[in-house]
Amino acid sequence: MKKILILGGCGFIGKNLAEEFAGDRRYSLLVFDRPAALKTATRLKGVKYYGGDFNSQAALEKVFRENKVDTVLHLVSTTVPAASDGFGMVFDIESNLVPTVRLLCLMRKYGARKIVFASSGGTIYGPAAAAGRRTGIPECAGTNPICSHGTVKLAIEKYIQLSAYLHGLEYLVLRISNPYGEHHSSRVQGLINVALRNVRDGLPVTVWGDGKVVRDYIYIKDCVKAVKRLIDKDVSGEIINVGSGRGYSVNEVLRVMRGLVGDFSVERKPGRKFDVPRVVLDIRRLKALTGFRPTDIKAGIRKTREWLLETGTNDRRK
Amino acid sequence: MKKILILGGCGFIGKNLAEEFAGDRRYSLLVFDRPAALKTATRLKGVKYYGGDFNSQAALEKVFRENKVDTVLHLVSTTVPAASDGFGMVFDIESNLVPTVRLLCLMRKYGARKIVFASSGGTIYGPAAAAGRRTGIPECAGTNPICSHGTVKLAIEKYIQLSAYLHGLEYLVLRISNPYGEHHSSRVQGLINVALRNVRDGLPVTVWGDGKVVRDYIYIKDCVKAVKRLIDKDVSGEIINVGSGRGYSVNEVLRVMRGLVGDFSVERKPGRKFDVPRVVLDIRRLKALTGFRPTDIKAGIRKTREWLLETGTNDRRK
Repeated sequence: MKKILILGGCGFIGKNLAEEFAGDRRYSLLVFDRPAALKTATRLKGVKYYGGDFNSQAALEKVFRENKVDTVLHLVSTTVPAASDGFGMVFDIESNLVPTVRLLCLMRKYGARKIVFASSGGTIYGPAAAAGRRTGIPECAGTNPICSHGTVKLAIEKYIQLSAYLHGLEYLVLRISNPYGEHHSSRVQGLINVALRNVRDGLPVTVWGDGKVVRDYIYIKDCVKAVKRLIDKDVSGEIINVGSGRGYSVNEVLRVMRGLVGDFSVERKPGRKFDVPRVVLDIRRLKALTGFRPTDIKAGIRKTREWLLETGTNDRRK
Repeated sequence: MKKILILGGCGFIGKNLAEEFAGDRRYSLLVFDRPAALKTATRLKGVKYYGGDFNSQAALEKVFRENKVDTVLHLVSTTVPAASDGFGMVFDIESNLVPTVRLLCLMRKYGARKIVFASSGGTIYGPAAAAGRRTGIPECAGTNPICSHGTVKLAIEKYIQLSAYLHGLEYLVLRISNPYGEHHSSRVQGLINVALRNVRDGLPVTVWGDGKVVRDYIYIKDCVKAVKRLIDKDVSGEIINVGSGRGYSVNEVLRVMRGLVGDFSVERKPGRKFDVPRVVLDIRRLKALTGFRPTDIKAGIRKTREWLLETGTNDRRK
């Protein structure tokens, strides 16, 4: 049995991924997350939970000391693109890049074999990579992020590749686009979930700028299934786009939503400079490796809405 | 008069650059460096010196509060490629990347117009960029550093370009190759100077590996002249290679040295994994902008040796 440690296993992607892995007897699962996140999380059977701050080397080291970890799934992110300007950049570096580099040192010290890192397909490329491209952005495109969130993700990718080169660490970098669906809980990040929740709660939906910003939305169950398949196949030494490969503008997403839930009010705010106009990922590599077929956005939004209507007070509190 | 602040103005490149600028009345010069570095430095006439740690926001902010700085020349580096593995990576990030991001915030706060950053032509590209290339590495080549020093330089470049995009900061990134010559003082970094000094002091010259590693050596006076010309012309929004455009192996450099100083003993040590096999820069852009013509390596080494033989106890202490 391979021991897999999920860092940030109580977050949006983490919960879905833990559920996806939990039934598979080839793996033994460990989850590490903030004590506050563990408190409200539903514990999965057979999974061992560790509470601690990602920035605490002692807390992380305890996990490696007590377990012979094979693979680390690194899903922690303390920032979102909107909250990483000004001195927030320093926080971004100190709470994401620095602890990741410490993690790499710990993995080497304790002989952990492989890291799977959730990078950012939405922010790592920047505007130039998409400009004038009719098809999706391939993994080999230039990386010129226009927010600190993406810059830190890029720096982490480089440190991972450095550890691979110098010390033989195996790695898989996932440039995930915009996931939506079950277990999402942020009030600020993730258009589809935030908008559906606002509609449910009778609040207006905020749109930044003219709503023409195009993103690659991926249904979270598709995302974690594809990621698990890549891990099952032990794909290594690669950077892989994980998205639907299809682009929808904010306005188009809202139109799909209206078709499902009826009309709702929209609050328009000025456009944000750190929003790349268009990000659609080229997912040919993902498809070739996993046979990936994305769920249609209408079906995905419908499922997300059903889940949202079922979830109780716990989710509303956040 | 434009106020130019040189961060690390008492270091190797800094001293040479300060001397180059000091005679030009179009500029008013400020130098910021560690108090220990200021203590032993020769003060130039008309230059205002500030002592402080680059990592101290208060010390840096004092300079911006007291002066209307136009351009910042950022030459500070607390690490060399050899000393940035393991937990040294964390130090590298915390002592170089974090204070540079703070610097960018301060520049914005105080309205400083432009940053000129000394990046690393020798480490930022990595092995793939040079492999199979007959000519030098152009600025547009992929950037895959194999040491933390280069990874941090790359992250700094990205943060500078981010500040340019979001807030209109002007910038000039200089990917400097391997400078040698007057005012060099490191005992570990910089083959030509370290070797000449060891020969002067009767010590053996250390060679890592088979001596076939090829580097692009640039005479420091060439380097600072070219940099000053770029600043005089106010070249902005560009990343520019600053090297001689010529490659010499370690063995070839030692041969040139033997022709000048006679035979000396060599101590061979195992090759280092973070040494890129071959780095020669494509300097067509630099030439087009400045009419740059590099000094021949023999002449450069001769001048360096003359300076070394003239320097007294001050230099020997380090």
